Amino acid sequence: MNEFGLIANYLAPLAEGPEALSLKDDAALIPGPAGFEYAVTKDALVEGVHFLPDTAPEDLARKVLGVNLSDMAAMGALPKYYLIAACLNPKIDEEWHRRFTSELHTMQHEYGCMLIGGDTVKHKETLSFAVTMIGEVPEGKALLRSGAKAGDDIWVSGTIGDAALGLNSDDAYLKSRYLRPQPRVGLGVALRGVASAAVDISDGLVADIGHLAHASGVMAIIEAADVPLSKQAKAADISTILTGGDDYELAFTAAPAMAGKVVEIAASTGVSLTRIGHITGGHGVAVHGADGGLITLEKPGFTHF
Amino acid sequence: MNEFGLIANYLAPLAEGPEALSLKDDAALIPGPAGFEYAVTKDALVEGVHFLPDTAPEDLARKVLGVNLSDMAAMGALPKYYLIAACLNPKIDEEWHRRFTSELHTMQHEYGCMLIGGDTVKHKETLSFAVTMIGEVPEGKALLRSGAKAGDDIWVSGTIGDAALGLNSDDAYLKSRYLRPQPRVGLGVALRGVASAAVDISDGLVADIGHLAHASGVMAIIEAADVPLSKQAKAADISTILTGGDDYELAFTAAPAMAGKVVEIAASTGVSLTRIGHITGGHGVAVHGADGGLITLEKPGFTHF
Repeated sequence: MNEFGLIANYLAPLAEGPEALSLKDDAALIPGPAGFEYAVTKDALVEGVHFLPDTAPEDLARKVLGVNLSDMAAMGALPKYYLIAACLNPKIDEEWHRRFTSELHTMQHEYGCMLIGGDTVKHKETLSFAVTMIGEVPEGKALLRSGAKAGDDIWVSGTIGDAALGLNSDDAYLKSRYLRPQPRVGLGVALRGVASAAVDISDGLVADIGHLAHASGVMAIIEAADVPLSKQAKAADISTILTGGDDYELAFTAAPAMAGKVVEIAASTGVSLTRIGHITGGHGVAVHGADGGLITLEKPGFTHF
Repeated sequence: MNEFGLIANYLAPLAEGPEALSLKDDAALIPGPAGFEYAVTKDALVEGVHFLPDTAPEDLARKVLGVNLSDMAAMGALPKYYLIAACLNPKIDEEWHRRFTSELHTMQHEYGCMLIGGDTVKHKETLSFAVTMIGEVPEGKALLRSGAKAGDDIWVSGTIGDAALGLNSDDAYLKSRYLRPQPRVGLGVALRGVASAAVDISDGLVADIGHLAHASGVMAIIEAADVPLSKQAKAADISTILTGGDDYELAFTAAPAMAGKVVEIAASTGVSLTRIGHITGGHGVAVHGADGGLITLEKPGFTHF
């Protein structure tokens, strides 16, 4: 049974109210202060699975908070509060704490959120973190995975595949894309009322657009030749680009009539936005190559099981 | 540097708003739906630290959710939502998932909360969990650690020390007290407006009352002879009783004029409540023996560092 089977069979039945969005979105939505909802998400990161041993404490802070900020971005929510559980090992010294928390402090001011709680545990070996992030979104304005409709365009922010390439590269740009994701929080907020559905790219472009298509009950067509690539990624294998995770860009859908607004948002947020395909009736994701033929992928993205 | 030094030096500065209660309480308090606040807490549990390997999945579910429900109880909050991050290992099979989630389901109905999100990760070795719990409390009615005043009585629920004894005992009652804590959620709610301060007993009676005294800027005097004990605990070493953790009972303070109400609450909730001391001016915790002399404890309770 893979991760998604586990969630569907055993965890989804515990999500007994609409707030959980059937555990199928980037965050849950619970009632917030008058006129607002809270988006609530939780992501865990484990040494050897999500980050390499000896990752610099600053990079670790970027990653640990970043993946949760990216979930806020995908919901169109403004980050407000976070809690962190850290399982530390004996190698972690006071200097590590100083550097890790100093970077968290910098990020709090970049993203407007603050620590409200947590727990620290010591373990003989493996370093791991679990972060819960709570963000605010006006009632009914959250970007869900489930709103895509046939005819919508599919857009992505930034460039795709850099993080996956950065995992095994000495190129400084690619490495920084892997180590220091830049969650698209401002973009997510700007897309409220414009995007019909959104998801962040953590498992891989095809896998995450697949989640969006599944939640919306539609089919996604991706034109591989239109996927925006950095200079460095242009030489890389296209299947690594399409299936590599950890980009923390946003993929979203919007009605064709919204294309002008999307272009304006790219200009106002300074984030490049590229149309890479469209939504049709049906199920699943298909990737078209430059020759119009289908590209077959062995594995659409990262799963844990 | 111990766990509390770490929090004070590196994490507390990240808690830049009043919502975090300086990371000194059982939960943070953030604005909630009109007239309410949310209490938000996070606790992590790691195999070999918080629970023994081969703990039955039902007992693990009780413990993992229970410690967080107990934080809600200590705040006088009604549990509403939780998120769970699970770091699973290859020994965990489908039957384990079925039993673990089935017990969570039972607890959801006992305590009125539901799963809204989470994350599952696979790791080669150590099983661990991090749970975030969100509960609701009427605005301004949360029980804080910081409200105790000189002259207040100190009360505890249930009996003390059983869980610590249960860790190394074959006695079925003591073992169940260790394995299956019964968070005092109903009691916490009933104490709104009656208790001046409250804390749950997770680190140990003296340590946790010490946290309360510290947060309130007062001194706590505990009369060892008045600490309520089960039949099984009466034979045990008093320092194990006073410093053993994991009871998940509530300790709270109340003005002497509230004593009648406290007795009524014991009757209405069916939870025994015992006066074990009082608050004075000063700092720290002192424990008086039956002879009136001071009891000296080598280590007031459990810390991770």
